[in-house]
Amino acid sequence: MNNLFSTALRYENGDLRVLDQRRLPAEEFWHRCENEDDLIALIQGLAIRGAPLLGIAATLWVGHRAAQGDDKTTLTQTLAALRASRPTAVNLMNYLDRLQALIDCNAGNPAIVDEAVAIFNEDVALCDAMSQHGAALVRPGARILTHCNTGGLATAGIGTAIGVIVTAHRQHKDIKVWVDETRPLLQGGRLTAWEMQNAGVPYQIICDNMAASLMQKSEVDMIVVGADRIAANGDFANKVGTYSLAVLAHHHKVPFYVVAPHTTVDPHCASGDAIPIEQRNENEVRGVAGSFGQCLWAPKQAPVYNPAFDVTPAGLVYGWILDSGVYSQAEVNAGALVSLATVSATA
Amino acid sequence: MNNLFSTALRYENGDLRVLDQRRLPAEEFWHRCENEDDLIALIQGLAIRGAPLLGIAATLWVGHRAAQGDDKTTLTQTLAALRASRPTAVNLMNYLDRLQALIDCNAGNPAIVDEAVAIFNEDVALCDAMSQHGAALVRPGARILTHCNTGGLATAGIGTAIGVIVTAHRQHKDIKVWVDETRPLLQGGRLTAWEMQNAGVPYQIICDNMAASLMQKSEVDMIVVGADRIAANGDFANKVGTYSLAVLAHHHKVPFYVVAPHTTVDPHCASGDAIPIEQRNENEVRGVAGSFGQCLWAPKQAPVYNPAFDVTPAGLVYGWILDSGVYSQAEVNAGALVSLATVSATA
Repeated sequence: MNNLFSTALRYENGDLRVLDQRRLPAEEFWHRCENEDDLIALIQGLAIRGAPLLGIAATLWVGHRAAQGDDKTTLTQTLAALRASRPTAVNLMNYLDRLQALIDCNAGNPAIVDEAVAIFNEDVALCDAMSQHGAALVRPGARILTHCNTGGLATAGIGTAIGVIVTAHRQHKDIKVWVDETRPLLQGGRLTAWEMQNAGVPYQIICDNMAASLMQKSEVDMIVVGADRIAANGDFANKVGTYSLAVLAHHHKVPFYVVAPHTTVDPHCASGDAIPIEQRNENEVRGVAGSFGQCLWAPKQAPVYNPAFDVTPAGLVYGWILDSGVYSQAEVNAGALVSLATVSATA
Repeated sequence: MNNLFSTALRYENGDLRVLDQRRLPAEEFWHRCENEDDLIALIQGLAIRGAPLLGIAATLWVGHRAAQGDDKTTLTQTLAALRASRPTAVNLMNYLDRLQALIDCNAGNPAIVDEAVAIFNEDVALCDAMSQHGAALVRPGARILTHCNTGGLATAGIGTAIGVIVTAHRQHKDIKVWVDETRPLLQGGRLTAWEMQNAGVPYQIICDNMAASLMQKSEVDMIVVGADRIAANGDFANKVGTYSLAVLAHHHKVPFYVVAPHTTVDPHCASGDAIPIEQRNENEVRGVAGSFGQCLWAPKQAPVYNPAFDVTPAGLVYGWILDSGVYSQAEVNAGALVSLATVSATA
């Protein structure tokens, strides 16, 4: 299989290496995957995160094994083991389904390798398309606020919301970024800050509760966020805190955009009400823990409410930036997202 | 001087003891003050916090020294040293001014002791009055959200916003409290959680960015917060994140109240624009630090924006709960706060 490089994955001369995101930003440590168990341990241990990136990592491993000449039975076993590593990751399922279909119809190992490379390249191309559409909306000198991490650490390409930011920066738009730290898991303060630093984009980290006062002072010109799932009516689920930003943006008349590939649209989900929201471990809110250390500051048994995501209604979204273009409220109300998903499913 | 007890201060048999708030909630450690330097070190080291409590602690020490028979010169020196310990603390200045006035006019040590006790008791009475007015607004079964810490750890009495909560709980109103953790210094997750636990009030800690989704689900019936300074027009400064809650409450039609004694109203401050906002240390946002441990998760030199306070405009406030009663938008627009401050100044 050809060499393939992204911010957090490297396939080079037959070796798959994975950047350990748990150790960022303090250390850039690359694991070499000797076998599928290594990769599964990295996925389950959250060294690799970001829905698209998880799927791409598994895809590259299956492509690699096909290139090494594994037979149909072995490939099927490998694929099943990878699929079981994170049962709720939709991108992982979708990408592995495409590879399994080729295995099932005896398409041959070269076809499987080609498909793995195609999936990687598609992810890069989706990111590029969204980023170009989004960057066209960024005015020179814009101060852009973002939440969580949606960049090269979450995708094979330049990212979704962060893709827009980095592309606008490369276009010399003289932008500046407000990075929400994104409690409880601090994807903003750790990972987005690291990406902004690497890309040379001027930024400042803020606590999530400071975004409102920045908007009050007219210090925010635009907000871009990613999405975990977009319903047919344009409602979307994303990292908790996103809905808060959407309400604040609405109040302060700051344009609020969601950036995601068309594959994030779930046409079977009529509205945000149908999106289930997972509750996470209480200790995440009682303190912090990571390779940077561990602290618990709350009373030991303190009761906690810790939803992973929240749902932003379509009515608060200024525009949906997808790989196929930017969609307005009127277009989404008229069913643009459903048509898109239908076209995609039948393509 | 008589024995006097509060949540975080104990004057007993001639000894002043101070609860070290830095070690809460893990440990309840009381320092005994041997001399004024001990107390100043505790104030400067943030073992004692909360604007009213700082003033009360200094007041008790001066009262104690007067009771021990210190002469005018010594008392004046003690008072000057305490005054210089936190130069921006307005309550500290005001309380010490009252004691210095008695020293200056040779009122005699018993009068100074009486004044110190009166200041302590006044703070308790102000808290009780606010709490009663506020609790009357709490409906049975109410779910109340609060920010930062405004309870017995910040005042000599039951507190301001937390006073309302604890009083409503004691009235068997079957309330439940959402505690904002209050990044970056975590006064909610550490101190308010500890106070709720001690008072037996049902509560859950949330990250600050989760309040919006609770309001979206109609899980918040009322918001109560404290204030650091209230301008003549009703705008007020409070811990950063308060303005965010005010906007979210407005959007979701949740009643949003500020609770403070009339002494927090600054009639010389026409509006919130005139309230200066201090920027704090960058490492507070790059990580956390306290007796619970220390972690830095952001890139080492990451640029940070870290205002201590934000300003909530009067237009977003549903009611001002003061010791003298509850004031509506209409009353505040008609100048109720200015009259109050004027009456207070001439009393």
